[in-house]
Amino acid sequence: MQVSLYDTTLRDGTQREGLSLSVEDKVKIARVLDGLGVHYVEGGWPGSNPKDAEFFGRLARGGLSRAKVAAFGSTRRAGARCADDPSIQALVAAETPVVTLVGKSSTLHVERVLETTRVENLRMIGESVAFFRALGKEVVYDAEHLFDGWRLDPDYALATLGAAADAGADWIVLCDTNGGSLPETVREVVGCIRERIRTPLGIHPHNDSGLAVANALAAVQAGCGQVQGTINGYGERCGNVDLVPVIANLQLKLGYEVLPPEQLRRLTEVSHFVAAVANLNPDAHAPYVGRSAFAHKGGIHVAAIAKVPESYQHIDPAAVGNEMRVVVSEVAGRRNVRLRAEALGLEAAASEADVLRRIKELEHRGFQFEAAEGSFEMLLRRAEPGYRPPFELLEFTVIVEKRGGQEVAAQATVKLHVAGQIMHTAAEGDGPVNALDQALRKALVPHYPELDEVRLVDYKVRIVDEHLGTAARPRVIVESARGIERWSTVGCSENIIEASWLALWDSLELPLLRNGRSPPAPAPTPPA
Amino acid sequence: MQVSLYDTTLRDGTQREGLSLSVEDKVKIARVLDGLGVHYVEGGWPGSNPKDAEFFGRLARGGLSRAKVAAFGSTRRAGARCADDPSIQALVAAETPVVTLVGKSSTLHVERVLETTRVENLRMIGESVAFFRALGKEVVYDAEHLFDGWRLDPDYALATLGAAADAGADWIVLCDTNGGSLPETVREVVGCIRERIRTPLGIHPHNDSGLAVANALAAVQAGCGQVQGTINGYGERCGNVDLVPVIANLQLKLGYEVLPPEQLRRLTEVSHFVAAVANLNPDAHAPYVGRSAFAHKGGIHVAAIAKVPESYQHIDPAAVGNEMRVVVSEVAGRRNVRLRAEALGLEAAASEADVLRRIKELEHRGFQFEAAEGSFEMLLRRAEPGYRPPFELLEFTVIVEKRGGQEVAAQATVKLHVAGQIMHTAAEGDGPVNALDQALRKALVPHYPELDEVRLVDYKVRIVDEHLGTAARPRVIVESARGIERWSTVGCSENIIEASWLALWDSLELPLLRNGRSPPAPAPTPPA
Repeated sequence: MQVSLYDTTLRDGTQREGLSLSVEDKVKIARVLDGLGVHYVEGGWPGSNPKDAEFFGRLARGGLSRAKVAAFGSTRRAGARCADDPSIQALVAAETPVVTLVGKSSTLHVERVLETTRVENLRMIGESVAFFRALGKEVVYDAEHLFDGWRLDPDYALATLGAAADAGADWIVLCDTNGGSLPETVREVVGCIRERIRTPLGIHPHNDSGLAVANALAAVQAGCGQVQGTINGYGERCGNVDLVPVIANLQLKLGYEVLPPEQLRRLTEVSHFVAAVANLNPDAHAPYVGRSAFAHKGGIHVAAIAKVPESYQHIDPAAVGNEMRVVVSEVAGRRNVRLRAEALGLEAAASEADVLRRIKELEHRGFQFEAAEGSFEMLLRRAEPGYRPPFELLEFTVIVEKRGGQEVAAQATVKLHVAGQIMHTAAEGDGPVNALDQALRKALVPHYPELDEVRLVDYKVRIVDEHLGTAARPRVIVESARGIERWSTVGCSENIIEASWLALWDSLELPLLRNGRSPPAPAPTPPA
Repeated sequence: MQVSLYDTTLRDGTQREGLSLSVEDKVKIARVLDGLGVHYVEGGWPGSNPKDAEFFGRLARGGLSRAKVAAFGSTRRAGARCADDPSIQALVAAETPVVTLVGKSSTLHVERVLETTRVENLRMIGESVAFFRALGKEVVYDAEHLFDGWRLDPDYALATLGAAADAGADWIVLCDTNGGSLPETVREVVGCIRERIRTPLGIHPHNDSGLAVANALAAVQAGCGQVQGTINGYGERCGNVDLVPVIANLQLKLGYEVLPPEQLRRLTEVSHFVAAVANLNPDAHAPYVGRSAFAHKGGIHVAAIAKVPESYQHIDPAAVGNEMRVVVSEVAGRRNVRLRAEALGLEAAASEADVLRRIKELEHRGFQFEAAEGSFEMLLRRAEPGYRPPFELLEFTVIVEKRGGQEVAAQATVKLHVAGQIMHTAAEGDGPVNALDQALRKALVPHYPELDEVRLVDYKVRIVDEHLGTAARPRVIVESARGIERWSTVGCSENIIEASWLALWDSLELPLLRNGRSPPAPAPTPPA
């Protein structure tokens, strides 16, 4: 049996405290979800947020290949007409094939929050659904507080679903908005509704009781054909249901068709990618995809695993793209390097083991290559026979000063060995990293004018080992672009300026090597 | 119905990657668990760890008031006698009233991991249990891999439980060691065993499928009277079951007696205390006890909650000692400011509009107060009549240098006006921010020695407007702690050093104001 995945990371996920995504971030995540095989990608609430309107505009120009894009909004206001309701009109303007409407199923919310009548609420649901059906949209109806409403007045809750069904909704999604329901309640209520409503049903659980994954599975087993959730369980309060273990449990434990098996193996990568874009540390202990999910510490466990891998593992970690961590397979690692080198059209055969050793050493120091393919490429290129660096750092100094009520000032000087010459430059900047970047470009552009076209389009900082306070290690990821070509590079150090320098270095050297730029003789000495 | 809580934070919890507890830490946690009303505290595995033996010695001298202390070990070795087995003898030496023995229930583990016979394994279980019963101990038998073993050979799995029951075990605990079981399997298997074994049953779930809490509840509903888990779900791989939501769900949702209601209200405090001792950041999104568990961000939710608090909350947060929090953000209205000022015990009535205007202005510049309550509190305190700053920045300089192959060096100088004196200090650091922090402390601690106890426990950087590249604005969030008190502060500027300074400033001034520290006359001039 097929289960539909409806991802709301870009809308409900961003309700998580401290999470905010730029339009560019949202587009990146939408593309990755599309590639994974998610069926619906909800992009935002165009009526409440101008950034969301921009997102829908971007996707309209370069859409997704398989996933359907959904815009989210609420049913029309009490006493209004759909045609006059600005929030409904913002949904129309989003021009998405799918419109998701949230409406009230609980009498508490109808009477005390909306402060309208039960009858008017039914009209709001029916008219809003019918309005978008008449525009030819696929309509998903999200029944907010369905389970809480069921407890208060099951007949009225059912009547709200009937209003959506009669108006032609394509899906009716039962929301455990406050996250307080138990799996047996979910199973029982879904079963009752399944008998009375013929529209396909979905489930939208929250994790306030630590039961979101169990509730999603119970709902699917009771007849829901769609799960609405977020990658990594991001969301308000304790989060939405985490789609990652939902997908893995449905497919590997319960035999549902969710993703093609080859896509299931990308689950770990996708989870980490979304965390990187959201600038959050991935949860090392997350089921299935955490770095520690198949890591074995206890001596007895390790000994048992050496004899029988499944003795302390509930699944083969490769099924979700993760790996067992105690017995690190050197062969698997080398194969990965080779695969990735081939993908870049580079020869790594000779130095595979060296590159692997270098990666392990750098990752131990806090580097991370998952989101920094450009730096991975630089590792391979620097290991190639005959590599000669197009420039070499001799020294830099960065000074930041604040005096009295004045603005903070930042300046940098750099001394580089470039194509046989010493370049010594200085620049001011908006901050120390910008000053360093400006000084580097002043030294390089006279020799490599093509660097004038290279723009830094993204700069991210994440702290490794956050609990060390200001002595923690910042990891910097820089994204650069030249035309439509893009590459990400990484640097990590206790010193944020040095971490930035390392990421900038790779970001500026990579386009030179791709262009076949080699320094004229005499070559500078290779870096240590 | 009463459910017994068996805490294994001190043993299985420490299998978590990166978690290690000193004997002193363990004693502290044991006392707090005792105070909470946990029924059994498992202290460690004396046969495998000398630290654990010391812990039992410490507790023997100054025991716990209500909780029973358990020592953990495995059944005797194949072919040995209990009297000759060093691991069994280490359990005897621990002198605890309760001994917990783990044994094999799965034929895979008996034959391929232990490499012994099915019959010998039954003897190992029976003789080991009988040995400790004869010594007058309460014996808990942990049936490792019970659910996996049941799948392979239910008759043999049952025979292992029978061996423990016949030998007089007081409890038989069914372990989902690999964490791969689904709630319906747990319910069904527990039901089968309940019909055949009269010894009281317990459950020991792991979270590898994201279902540990659901599995614990299913087991209790099917007849288990004991739950083995850890505070905050610490444990190997994806962790043991988190006792916190198990307790809250059983008591508040299912009507079991677990803790006295007045103790239930200490759940949040205990969860945060254990995290602090373990030196881990508490999970802000943890069900029931996370800082964000009852935090509301969206404008619609905030408006609804002001009318009807239960509209977006599954329980009253006070029941578990947590609190509702309205997240201050751009959309926040005056009502939010008032609610939060009241929660802090501050008068904001006079300056509400000013504070709100200042928040909007700062958020427009990239500040974000939703994750920085400390800086919000500072805004209120600085707006109070009669506010006098305990210190004032005059200037700082930060220098980062790299020369040739040498390590990067960072140093900072600061000049502060502190309690009528000019303090001019300098320090080196692991990076520019650490150097600045060190120099600030050198200037402040002579006047305010209590700042010596304030630790920076978290430092985060997030780039606002990332597409601006290195000219983007870094936003720095610093989390500080004094004992179990914690506060987060924020700074934002195009210059990451200035952003860090702003966050450090608030983080160091806040504890002084909370202590009622005011500078002696003559007061410094107020900051611009």
